[in-house]
Amino acid sequence: MKLNIALLAGDGIGPEVIDQAVKVSDAIAKKFNHEINWKPALTGAAAIDAVGEPYPDETHEICASSDAVLFGAIGHPRFDNDPSAKVRPEQGLLKMRKKLGLFANVRPTFTFPSLLDKSPLKRERIEGTDLVFLRELTGGIYFGEKGRRDDGETAFDNCVYTRAEVQRLAKKGFELAMTRGKKLCCVDKANVLETSRLWRETVQAMEKDYPEVEVSYEFVDAVAMRLVQWPNSYDVLITENLFGDILTDEASVISGSMGLMPSASLGSDIGLFEPIHGSYPQATGLNIANPMATVLSAAMMFENFGLQEEGKAIRDAVNNALNKGIVTEDLADGGKSYGTKEVGDWLAENI
Amino acid sequence: MKLNIALLAGDGIGPEVIDQAVKVSDAIAKKFNHEINWKPALTGAAAIDAVGEPYPDETHEICASSDAVLFGAIGHPRFDNDPSAKVRPEQGLLKMRKKLGLFANVRPTFTFPSLLDKSPLKRERIEGTDLVFLRELTGGIYFGEKGRRDDGETAFDNCVYTRAEVQRLAKKGFELAMTRGKKLCCVDKANVLETSRLWRETVQAMEKDYPEVEVSYEFVDAVAMRLVQWPNSYDVLITENLFGDILTDEASVISGSMGLMPSASLGSDIGLFEPIHGSYPQATGLNIANPMATVLSAAMMFENFGLQEEGKAIRDAVNNALNKGIVTEDLADGGKSYGTKEVGDWLAENI
Ligand SMILES: CC(C)[C@H](C(=O)O)[C@@H](O)C(=O)O
Ligand SMILES: CC(C)[C@H](C(=O)O)[C@@H](O)C(=O)O
Repeated sequence: MKLNIALLAGDGIGPEVIDQAVKVSDAIAKKFNHEINWKPALTGAAAIDAVGEPYPDETHEICASSDAVLFGAIGHPRFDNDPSAKVRPEQGLLKMRKKLGLFANVRPTFTFPSLLDKSPLKRERIEGTDLVFLRELTGGIYFGEKGRRDDGETAFDNCVYTRAEVQRLAKKGFELAMTRGKKLCCVDKANVLETSRLWRETVQAMEKDYPEVEVSYEFVDAVAMRLVQWPNSYDVLITENLFGDILTDEASVISGSMGLMPSASLGSDIGLFEPIHGSYPQATGLNIANPMATVLSAAMMFENFGLQEEGKAIRDAVNNALNKGIVTEDLADGGKSYGTKEVGDWLAENI
Repeated sequence: MKLNIALLAGDGIGPEVIDQAVKVSDAIAKKFNHEINWKPALTGAAAIDAVGEPYPDETHEICASSDAVLFGAIGHPRFDNDPSAKVRPEQGLLKMRKKLGLFANVRPTFTFPSLLDKSPLKRERIEGTDLVFLRELTGGIYFGEKGRRDDGETAFDNCVYTRAEVQRLAKKGFELAMTRGKKLCCVDKANVLETSRLWRETVQAMEKDYPEVEVSYEFVDAVAMRLVQWPNSYDVLITENLFGDILTDEASVISGSMGLMPSASLGSDIGLFEPIHGSYPQATGLNIANPMATVLSAAMMFENFGLQEEGKAIRDAVNNALNKGIVTEDLADGGKSYGTKEVGDWLAENI
């Protein structure tokens, strides 16, 4: 296969972890006879510094003409304590999602046996956890009309969903459930919100097309509880943008493997693949950041091209590294640890 | 003191647990020379059955003319799987909050040493957890305009906040922080929502009036994570209605003492006090429901009248019962357990 991949390293540790994912992907390309053409582009604070814009048109053109986007991390502390800043790295992220039509954020949470004890939860609560959130990413309160009235004394944010938006997300959810445990949980707040009632009735109407999928409907507050109590009771969860933002982050800490969790954002065409962790500014340039989440994001990218074996080869390499203790200091428990680059080298060599 | 207390038992186990709180409160009244005039009124599914309305005018009049409301639980499974039901118990709750002006929901999460091992979290993560959420309860997306357009194909919910609404909630938060650890965390999504930016700027402007309070601002997704990772790092948290709904439920499961957590909803005048647990329909009438959360809600009620000693007497009785194993089956770990009524009797006798 010939693949054009836009490479958005972004801020903080982004460039370092992206380098490792490139190395590992190149090793995959070599082994499986693919050709990857990497196309670097600016985003985030790095892009603001260079051209005053977190998602410049040039970057968009590069992404839009690629087969996929591999993304590092976005965000810089200098923007964090200034909610009124005119240009913010996050705006780049939202604009990119919208312009690339990335309406489905796929966030798996799974456990690595060797990392179970890193979880804040007791082992017996998380063993066997293997769930996937599908978060709607280009609608809802994120993109509705927002502003002020009454001389700035009143603020509003409008949450809007159309049936078509719910359907295309739910369709991905049903399809994903069919390839996994065949359980789908629709997370909403249908006892209060009209948008949630639209979600629920739309999903209910689709049930008949997937008779094998067992569908449940749970309120967002109940899911926030059950995720901590019995995370291994879930398979696929679908939800709207804001609920997904909150719940996927909550889910990410329960496995104890947060630093290893990849994600994909999918739409009609081009997928974007990124680690769920942030730009971790304190670690920038120190060669200590864990590259595994980004490497596993590359695995998701290959799998999304239908290249299952390639994805599996990456996952196997990561598992081997974990078992052999070829890990960065965050996973070393005070024992021997390796640098970002060294872990990347080991993974690439062991593909 | 002469106290008029509206008594809203509600649905499911509500009546049983309320009975115990009445017994314990009467014992307090006797010991400390108060006079309590209980005024029962209908609410929830029980009120729908009786008069077709979950919060009838008559009930509102009783509440509005009382000094406080003691509330059991609301909700019945017959309404749960019908999002389009015209009359729902939850509507009664929302109407009551609005009409009584209960704009601040106070939800403490604390640990009982003897129950630490019931938590899904590891002991070292939760030891010492003692936090309070102040959730805004009468604004935001719960009460904004909502509806459908485009022949029902598009749904919307509007989230609206005024500066005054934020100020009165934040004021309670600052004041509460001053009586506790002097730390206040404002939870918002100011990187995306205009209402959150109003929250943040309003709280920032109030900081100077409370120079001793250390204020932090965190995004709701980050808090959803940190609550599971380091719940004992929080003191007082303030947030808007929907975020509060999700996060207070998440917080309630981390302590392992969920069945014991009380809550208060406060406004200008009359406070409402209720356990955080639901109506637990399966247990109705079986004399097995744990009455302690409701009894501790009565303690919050006395404390809110400025009767600290009375509150403490109730808390001490509950602690003694826990230490002596005078508990319902949910806390008995397969050992000897007592009925709802028997636990209530013991608490009343040991005031
Ligand atoms: C940075 C922020 C705008 C973003 C979001 O809320 O979507 C982030 O939290 C995420 O989940 O990717
Ligand atoms: C029943 C429901 C409307 C209510 C809410 O969302 O406020 C409940 O979840 C709560 O937290 O009291």
